[in-house]
Amino acid sequence: MISSKGRGNPRLCGAGDGAVFFDNFSDRSPTLRNLTATLLGIAFTAGASAWEPLPPTPPVPEDNPMTAEKVELGKQLFFDPRFSATGTVSCNTCHNLMLGGDDGRPTSMGVHGLTGPRNAPTVWNAAFHPSQFWDGRAASLEAQARGPVVAEVEMGMKDLDRAIARVRAIPGYRDAFARVFGGEQPVTVDNAAKAVAAFERTLVTANSPYDRWAAGDKTALSPQQVRGLEKFAALGCTGCHQPPAFSGPRKPNGHFAVFPFNDGPYVDRYRLRDDIGRMAVSGRESDRHKYKIPTLRNVALTAPYFHNGRVATLDEAVRVMAAAQLNVEPPADDVADIVAFLQALTGEFPALTLPRLPATPGVSLIDP
Amino acid sequence: MISSKGRGNPRLCGAGDGAVFFDNFSDRSPTLRNLTATLLGIAFTAGASAWEPLPPTPPVPEDNPMTAEKVELGKQLFFDPRFSATGTVSCNTCHNLMLGGDDGRPTSMGVHGLTGPRNAPTVWNAAFHPSQFWDGRAASLEAQARGPVVAEVEMGMKDLDRAIARVRAIPGYRDAFARVFGGEQPVTVDNAAKAVAAFERTLVTANSPYDRWAAGDKTALSPQQVRGLEKFAALGCTGCHQPPAFSGPRKPNGHFAVFPFNDGPYVDRYRLRDDIGRMAVSGRESDRHKYKIPTLRNVALTAPYFHNGRVATLDEAVRVMAAAQLNVEPPADDVADIVAFLQALTGEFPALTLPRLPATPGVSLIDP
Repeated sequence: MISSKGRGNPRLCGAGDGAVFFDNFSDRSPTLRNLTATLLGIAFTAGASAWEPLPPTPPVPEDNPMTAEKVELGKQLFFDPRFSATGTVSCNTCHNLMLGGDDGRPTSMGVHGLTGPRNAPTVWNAAFHPSQFWDGRAASLEAQARGPVVAEVEMGMKDLDRAIARVRAIPGYRDAFARVFGGEQPVTVDNAAKAVAAFERTLVTANSPYDRWAAGDKTALSPQQVRGLEKFAALGCTGCHQPPAFSGPRKPNGHFAVFPFNDGPYVDRYRLRDDIGRMAVSGRESDRHKYKIPTLRNVALTAPYFHNGRVATLDEAVRVMAAAQLNVEPPADDVADIVAFLQALTGEFPALTLPRLPATPGVSLIDP
Repeated sequence: MISSKGRGNPRLCGAGDGAVFFDNFSDRSPTLRNLTATLLGIAFTAGASAWEPLPPTPPVPEDNPMTAEKVELGKQLFFDPRFSATGTVSCNTCHNLMLGGDDGRPTSMGVHGLTGPRNAPTVWNAAFHPSQFWDGRAASLEAQARGPVVAEVEMGMKDLDRAIARVRAIPGYRDAFARVFGGEQPVTVDNAAKAVAAFERTLVTANSPYDRWAAGDKTALSPQQVRGLEKFAALGCTGCHQPPAFSGPRKPNGHFAVFPFNDGPYVDRYRLRDDIGRMAVSGRESDRHKYKIPTLRNVALTAPYFHNGRVATLDEAVRVMAAAQLNVEPPADDVADIVAFLQALTGEFPALTLPRLPATPGVSLIDP
């Protein structure tokens, strides 16, 4: 069913061997590309135990235990636009929890209508990823949370000191930080990041049709979705997008991949190599065009696609990935089946109450 | 306690006589200004029955009855940013229900970082107002809801047809409109406006300390707040800001007032006459600098103040109003007492669940 162009044929190998593939991906010699493409094939089948459902809770770091009050504080901070230069942009602006945890835009629009270079990744299930940002430059949710606040084209605060000064100016936050973290000066950037990360660890969309199927309910996927799952594995997609989060495997240096790997018409059409990827933060030539492998959970809700958001639809994204990474051109039926399977990765979204944000009576913090 | 400058002394007259005052406010001859200022004094005292609490529900128009499903649909539309040109601005962006129903900015920031000329009024309790917008150009919430979607500096859609086409492109909305409104083509601008208005009629913040006091709990206000309430009435503020909503009285042409009425240093300092007010929409010279009388409910949460948002703090707003409308310079104690009373108008905010917004799987509606 899959039209291979001679390289990147599906092959069997153990799930989790991806590190070899990823480590070699930066080497662009045809021999090694064939080798790595060969290693892509994964022994996933519709019956294999490797199809794990998403756990109900993600890993929690020892130095940031979850408490209900910390999660609530993190939720307030996540939704609060007052920590952006204009008072108009919160975490939720670009990572909209009412939708797919993103903004539906090719690249995000921050303060003053400025736009950045990359597509907003979904925050749903981000707690399962080994690192954060497209280039993986943040090792944790805690580290990630500091970035957008001071990015000129996102929340646009001049520095984190000014941002935390705004938090500190709000009596309700001072009280909440004191209750949650204690200590003499609890309102710190570190603690704010911890609270936001704790909230984000609750943003789990388990119980998708795929999860119910993986847990044993074989009626949870339609026959087309089961075909799509089998083709997804046979094509080699699971080499990178592994259950349960369908993001990269948790290995040292094991969750990055060069994209696009192959040449072809899509590279220019969607300007896939304009961005040097992880090399921009590591400085290493071997990181050129490398990206963190994004999760495919809720991928049907996060169009448009890829690091630059230039691919408008999920079916085109499947074609681009097949060509750019696996050097195949799957027929339309296969694309449709894989898209149907990917739609089965849309999970159940936990009900969220809208937080009340603590007030500064009689005065606004925003001085735009 | 109140330092009068000879005009605008507190005088007794019946609550509700405001229409005379408002009708004459446009006439700027000193004689009539004295007359109208004299009429300002209102017989509100701490014990008078005129101090009504806010009803739990606002008036509902006969042609738009409330149903739970309509309210939920309206909530989704209210929070959905996909009906703005950039996909980044929803009703809630400028009328943030997590805060005071506004955005804390002098003037709002819409798509592409554009800003408009006026301060965002709070949406909380808007259903009690006789008209909407600062200039009262919309007679109903239903009429109001159409405006921001196509305002270039707000949601920036080229026209309402394109906006409703986006609604219509979302299967979950098509289904919801059909269930709520029925008919052959239920996804219309009229119906969308009705749903949003129905949701807004649930945005009532009753049970403020003032409301509990007005309902008989005489401990609900502090002694300072009671003093503030008495001074608020004695100064003549109740001539315009009448219970229960502390907005203008519901009379034909009776809820507009010229602002600023008097000359004085605040006029230039805060550029209070740069905007011609309601005259811009009516074309009538008699409407120059006339505005709808805004509610004072939750006013402590809606800084900065006035139609242009140029006054940063609530205490300065009280001084400006006393001078510009009543021609008095209240001493600092009186200002502090009145501010304390105004803070007692902060109500209880109903718990809101974050809506899930219906998806367009595999594709985004936003083409920025």
